[in-house]
Amino acid sequence: MKSPWLIGVFLIGAVSIPFTAHPSDEPQYSFDQVKSALAHIAIAHGPEASKLTRSPLSPQLYRNTVDAVPLIFLPGQTPGTGVSGSGVVVTASGQVLTNWHVIRDSEYALVIFRPTPPKTLADLTPSDVWVARSLWTDAKKDIGLLQLLSPMSKTKSLDLTFLKFIPLEDPLRVGVGEDVFAIGHPQGMYWSYTEGVISQIRPRFVWKAGEDSFQATIVQTQTAISHGSSGGPLINKDGNLVGLISTMITGQAGFNFAIAVHELQPLLLP
Amino acid sequence: MKSPWLIGVFLIGAVSIPFTAHPSDEPQYSFDQVKSALAHIAIAHGPEASKLTRSPLSPQLYRNTVDAVPLIFLPGQTPGTGVSGSGVVVTASGQVLTNWHVIRDSEYALVIFRPTPPKTLADLTPSDVWVARSLWTDAKKDIGLLQLLSPMSKTKSLDLTFLKFIPLEDPLRVGVGEDVFAIGHPQGMYWSYTEGVISQIRPRFVWKAGEDSFQATIVQTQTAISHGSSGGPLINKDGNLVGLISTMITGQAGFNFAIAVHELQPLLLP
Amino acid sequence: MKSPWLIGVFLIGAVSIPFTAHPSDEPQYSFDQVKSALAHIAIAHGPEASKLTRSPLSPQLYRNTVDAVPLIFLPGQTPGTGVSGSGVVVTASGQVLTNWHVIRDSEYALVIFRPTPPKTLADLTPSDVWVARSLWTDAKKDIGLLQLLSPMSKTKSLDLTFLKFIPLEDPLRVGVGEDVFAIGHPQGMYWSYTEGVISQIRPRFVWKAGEDSFQATIVQTQTAISHGSSGGPLINKDGNLVGLISTMITGQAGFNFAIAVHELQPLLLP
Repeated sequence: MKSPWLIGVFLIGAVSIPFTAHPSDEPQYSFDQVKSALAHIAIAHGPEASKLTRSPLSPQLYRNTVDAVPLIFLPGQTPGTGVSGSGVVVTASGQVLTNWHVIRDSEYALVIFRPTPPKTLADLTPSDVWVARSLWTDAKKDIGLLQLLSPMSKTKSLDLTFLKFIPLEDPLRVGVGEDVFAIGHPQGMYWSYTEGVISQIRPRFVWKAGEDSFQATIVQTQTAISHGSSGGPLINKDGNLVGLISTMITGQAGFNFAIAVHELQPLLLP
Repeated sequence: MKSPWLIGVFLIGAVSIPFTAHPSDEPQYSFDQVKSALAHIAIAHGPEASKLTRSPLSPQLYRNTVDAVPLIFLPGQTPGTGVSGSGVVVTASGQVLTNWHVIRDSEYALVIFRPTPPKTLADLTPSDVWVARSLWTDAKKDIGLLQLLSPMSKTKSLDLTFLKFIPLEDPLRVGVGEDVFAIGHPQGMYWSYTEGVISQIRPRFVWKAGEDSFQATIVQTQTAISHGSSGGPLINKDGNLVGLISTMITGQAGFNFAIAVHELQPLLLP
Repeated sequence: MKSPWLIGVFLIGAVSIPFTAHPSDEPQYSFDQVKSALAHIAIAHGPEASKLTRSPLSPQLYRNTVDAVPLIFLPGQTPGTGVSGSGVVVTASGQVLTNWHVIRDSEYALVIFRPTPPKTLADLTPSDVWVARSLWTDAKKDIGLLQLLSPMSKTKSLDLTFLKFIPLEDPLRVGVGEDVFAIGHPQGMYWSYTEGVISQIRPRFVWKAGEDSFQATIVQTQTAISHGSSGGPLINKDGNLVGLISTMITGQAGFNFAIAVHELQPLLLP
């Protein structure tokens, strides 16, 4: 693990996904090719039927928020490659936050919600995969904002009533020592739930990753993350967003960083 | 750390443990040689006398379960070597679950319970070390089941009333977000207690370790484990077994896997 | 990460800090040079104004203890270098515990408390940096005890009423499974709060670090630490000291060690 980047990079030998985005039109994706590129996905098993009577808060928080955390997938420009990360729906109108370093200057990205009822990839349909357009990015603060456009299935209406979203927390209510959790797609471990605490809040924090350098107010957290967690939510026990998972100190478990809600809140105000 | 295997391998220069198992007879072990091979063990200090008034649940769960988590030790076939892992007693009759990759095709294994009162290895006696026979293994699902036979001390009766065991949880009651803990013997840190959450339940999960490949329903957990934790229990806050620690994503702290109780339950039904 | 040492070593190219300690006099430090050497410090943001209504215990424990955890800094003997670690104030009279391996045989060390209100290093003043004298060390048990002497500012009186300290826990009240937390300065992440549990208590534990070897009763903990955490406190939910963070198993997250309060208590009795 040489790089602190938290995206997951697919290098799939034989599969080619032509990515033909036109500046003002929706790109023409082939669902079969997307399905092939994602063939290693084992869709997470749902625990909704659980008859749990113990520690009810965390399982309930997971169930309430997991469907607001899609997989973000960008087919690569060279055949058989692609990049995946995590995202979080933050409005009922279909705005999805992620990291800039997941989508960079792509105009479009694919957004895949957890299928319910749980099913394997063999049963994934074009209506499970949405096309989204990049609304806005801040490369310095590592923030990207997507707008859901339509499912790959042309037969499905653009109905967003199914959407769950995670509201932003008031920055003044975020404090060191608070319990938080993350949901994301680290290392191909899709829809992984991990817990931790807020270890510190660091204004105007500076970090580098590969060729890129960043500066933003960050929430430092012990919550376990890994490559592919990028862009996913860090959530408090009220179910509100406190940050956007972005990076970690390489090789030092428990010292991870999320773009603080302090940076995110101004983006979504009317 | 190149391999995700979680057993501990002893490579002890000068100590030879002849392992002369006969297919149908108990093997003839020399206690002094076992003792020598394990000489690096610092027996864990017991906190039973603690006058704790804080966070009482976890310390009590540790005390209630630690004596159901023996060290599994297999003397090596070449002089001075051996393999150790963890195990968990699951019936009052002395059935002990562990991983297949700890015992493989050995017919016998040694089972060492935590000595009480706490003592150093210098005081370990042959009655602290039990001989167990392999009842059944599933190399595909990485499960092994042992039956306790007798202590190495010939003077001690085959009294199993001292045994503590950990009942299996109902698989329908296991859910993402639940608090869990492990006890095991990672890195020679015997009887280590670590906590975490259930991060996901993954049916028909496929993984590889060295030359071996596996497929089983697994419980993914953030609970800290390391080499030597293999075969030990993952336990929920009701004190019931939810999985058998098996492997981890190498170098990625917090993404660990246990064979789910869904796979274990059918083994123990009458 | 080759070494389990948890100090942080500064290797700063262009900055020279002459360290001219005289055996019986206070050393003459240049504040500007100290400030330059520490220029990478981003002073932690204080969450004191937080209107938290959730999980109140941990945020409150952080706020109650953070100001008893200074940064320990030793300017290097060769130009542009230095060593930093963590410390913990344990008496109202200004006694500060740290690891022997942070201060070794230095007669003096610099002690930097978290500035309040939060400010950047550009605003750090000589009154924020204290000079302390080494009272006593135990190289075998990796313990060092400092006495605060005076701020680098000559105009500030030697008023210690601002001091917060963390009382030592009764060793009989420390048990496996208890919730604990650490505050320290890992990897330049100053005043980081991390949580975990007590995984085991190991009497007369033996470990090595580089050329040094140690033996002491230790508290094993899952609490996340890293280089620079050395000498900081491990604290229980009563706000009392249960150990002094010292080392970790390299590359194995969650298996860390603190010098147990059992070793510390005798030092501070009258």
